[in-house]
Parts: sequence; C-alpha cells; structure tokens
Amino acid sequence: MSTVVRTAVETDCQGILDLIMELAVYEKMEDQVKMKVETLRDDGFGADKYFQCNVAENQENGTSKLIGYVLYYYIYSTWEGKCLYMEDLYVSPEYRGRGVGSKLMGSVCKVAIEKKCARVHFAVLGWNKPSIDYYKRQGAVDLTDVEDWHLFRLTGSAIEKMAAKCDAV
Amino acid sequence: MSTVVRTAVETDCQGILDLIMELAVYEKMEDQVKMKVETLRDDGFGADKYFQCNVAENQENGTSKLIGYVLYYYIYSTWEGKCLYMEDLYVSPEYRGRGVGSKLMGSVCKVAIEKKCARVHFAVLGWNKPSIDYYKRQGAVDLTDVEDWHLFRLTGSAIEKMAAKCDAV
Repeated sequence: MSTVVRTAVETDCQGILDLIMELAVYEKMEDQVKMKVETLRDDGFGADKYFQCNVAENQENGTSKLIGYVLYYYIYSTWEGKCLYMEDLYVSPEYRGRGVGSKLMGSVCKVAIEKKCARVHFAVLGWNKPSIDYYKRQGAVDLTDVEDWHLFRLTGSAIEKMAAKCDAV
Repeated sequence: MSTVVRTAVETDCQGILDLIMELAVYEKMEDQVKMKVETLRDDGFGADKYFQCNVAENQENGTSKLIGYVLYYYIYSTWEGKCLYMEDLYVSPEYRGRGVGSKLMGSVCKVAIEKKCARVHFAVLGWNKPSIDYYKRQGAVDLTDVEDWHLFRLTGSAIEKMAAKCDAV
C-alpha cells in the first residue's frame, strides 16, 4: 500500500465530493452541504478558479482511491497582503496516523512559502479537540481564544435587505 | 456636503491605506500593519487581483476625501460554493451615523446577489460591541457563538516546518 499527495484534476471531483460529505458528517453538519459535482468542476477547473485542491491517493492491490484532500484559496489581509485560507483538510478515519494529513497541510504551506503568503488561516469547531490539539502541535494559534476574533455570516434575506441600502456601484 | 460610494481605482490606494491604518488603531493592533501603498496597488490593480474595494468619498467645499472603504474577495465553501468575505468595513468616526457604512456593506451584498454567493462572511473582535450590535441588527449570525467556530492562524517558522513534511506537489 502506498499513498501519494498530488494536485487534484477535474476527474477527481466525485471522489473529492464524497470526502467533503464524509467531513460534514464528522462535523455533524451534513444537512448544510448543497455542493454538486458539476459546481465543484466549474468552480475549481473552469475558466475562473475559485479554489485549489490537493488530494491523497491510496494505491493498493492494483486499485487507487482518494483517501484525503485539502482545499484552499487566496485571501487578503490589509495588514500583511496575500495569505492562504485552508477551507478543508480531511483524511478518511481508517487512513489516519500515518502523516497523510500533515503532508496535505504541508502542501498548502509550500504554496504559502512560494507565493510569499505570511499567513495560513483556517477555522475549527471548538468541540473538535483532536483537530485543535493537532493544529496547536503544528504551531497554529487560536485567534478566537487569543485575540477574541468572532466569525460572522450574512445569508439570504439579510443579504438582500443590506444590498437594498446601496443605490450606487 | 455629499458622499458617494464608488468602485476604488488605483489612485485611491494612498487614501485607502490611510483608512486601513485608522481602522488598525481603532482595533488596537496597529503594530501588525505591514502594508505599503505599492503592495496595495499591485495586489488590487495589477494583473492578478487579490481583492476588490469600494470607497466612500466625501465632497465638500470643492475638495474630495475618502472617508470609508470596504475591502472584500471571493472565498469558497465546500458546502455552498463561492461566497464573499468582507475583510474590512470602515468609516472615519466623524462621518458615522449617516448610513455610509451600510451603503458600503450593501455594495458588497449587491455583488453577492449578482454573483450568486450564498454567504457574506467577516470577522469582528469580541470587545467591539458597537460593531457586533450593528451587524446583528443587519441579520448577521455570530458563528463563533452559535456553532463554536474558532479562527486559527499559522505563520513564519510553523509554516516552514509544516511545508517540510510534504515532499510532493
């Protein structure tokens, strides 16, 4: 059995979507997943690219299977310039404990260095102690604990009401 | 006196940087600002665009002055597809209470509707109660309070150590 980490290609989208769903089930939020394989294809491999993705592929008995992925994109800090955001990092439970997650996260950090991004940001659920412990061991800082940053979201009718307040642009 | 909200142009960069600094002072984090006007120009108005920006311009006695800005970019949700992130929303203190902030935030929400982005995300410091109250009145949800999301950051040597764990990609 061997595992390779490589850049995702368009034909990986169904495998990535399966893993996105596995992660959402783990996070107990699978009811929020509205992603479709066509959307993932268009947004990651179409003319406008909204994300980048690396996958971990397992090769065993002549067959190969995606067992993990990391999905990331550029964000922008008005204090430090361009940075990276790691949206998802996931490895299927039966393949954990062999450094696959670290390789995937490492692949994003390599991009951060190459592209001179001062920071890699990501969000973790507070109850997900195994992940938090893992990230802290890698030197990550919990900005919600340390600087009291809260993440906010506007959706649906709130977006529409707000948009109606702007008659320009 | 009249105020217009419009798309930022390259020559606004110095005015935007002055406002970025004002906001950082308000957030008591001005020591973290490493931004230069050249970087802002390259990253917002160069070949690769890492952010978009709208400004509020005040016209009074024949002179005009930037009094607020909103800086935003695309992010990607693996559950809902492309979304927007509002990195900064700021109006100089003496021009508040006239709906300028709502117009700026509204201008981002208009883009969210046009581009079919299901969410507008942003982060607020927990002690910044006036802003939190304002955002909540607009229908925003504090995901850190409601779902316990914590924001994490990796920087410097932690990024380098992590990158060294990946020999591929």
